Amino acid sequence: MVNKIDHIAIVVRDIAAALQLYGEMFGFKAVETLDGPGGEFRAVLARAGDITLEFFQPLKEGTEFARFLDERGGGLHHISFATDDIAGELGKLKAQGRKLRNEEPVALPNAKIAFLSPAAAENVLIELVERG
Amino acid sequence: MVNKIDHIAIVVRDIAAALQLYGEMFGFKAVETLDGPGGEFRAVLARAGDITLEFFQPLKEGTEFARFLDERGGGLHHISFATDDIAGELGKLKAQGRKLRNEEPVALPNAKIAFLSPAAAENVLIELVERG
Repeated sequence: MVNKIDHIAIVVRDIAAALQLYGEMFGFKAVETLDGPGGEFRAVLARAGDITLEFFQPLKEGTEFARFLDERGGGLHHISFATDDIAGELGKLKAQGRKLRNEEPVALPNAKIAFLSPAAAENVLIELVERG
Repeated sequence: MVNKIDHIAIVVRDIAAALQLYGEMFGFKAVETLDGPGGEFRAVLARAGDITLEFFQPLKEGTEFARFLDERGGGLHHISFATDDIAGELGKLKAQGRKLRNEEPVALPNAKIAFLSPAAAENVLIELVERG
């Protein structure tokens, strides 16, 4: 099962400006930086209290985050639910016939992740994350 | 300061269908129903583990949620940060010159809330909530 919100992802034009703004307004501090494959984007996880936001800045035109920024001016992009058993969650969703972007977990250095299709979830892009 | 995500708000065409879908996929269960002023919308809070989602179904054309549904097909609408001191948070944001939808807290039966303008926060609509 899913048990908490791992993070909320926000697309921005300029990560440094976003971090400064959210720092001044709410005390968010950067805790981790990730560079996307092929230099397509940079992401920074930032935390305040128990809240984790992930800011994405597109670095190449025509990529998913760049199109989102162009079309919408940035903003809320996806939400990420933590689970202790991502393989089990994906198995259940597949058995239900849900549309998934990732049929199998994608291994990152310190987590396994998978995205559902927004078409499966009321036009919300949901990521599942199993950490540690 | 803000200390946790109170809820994530999602606009849908049909709350009953959304509850069934998120229930089947992730185990969400409805915990509270709220009817908007003037019958403009219905909202249902649903919970799974420590995650709370709020589904909004517009009930009148031309309202904010109806326009969001028409223009975007629904999806992520706003995020809500919990705070123990909403008056203090708003005071700080006003002193910083941030653009707010609510300059003062709005009293609901069991919470005080206030929305920032998306223009203040990287095109993200943020709600502050003080409960209890």
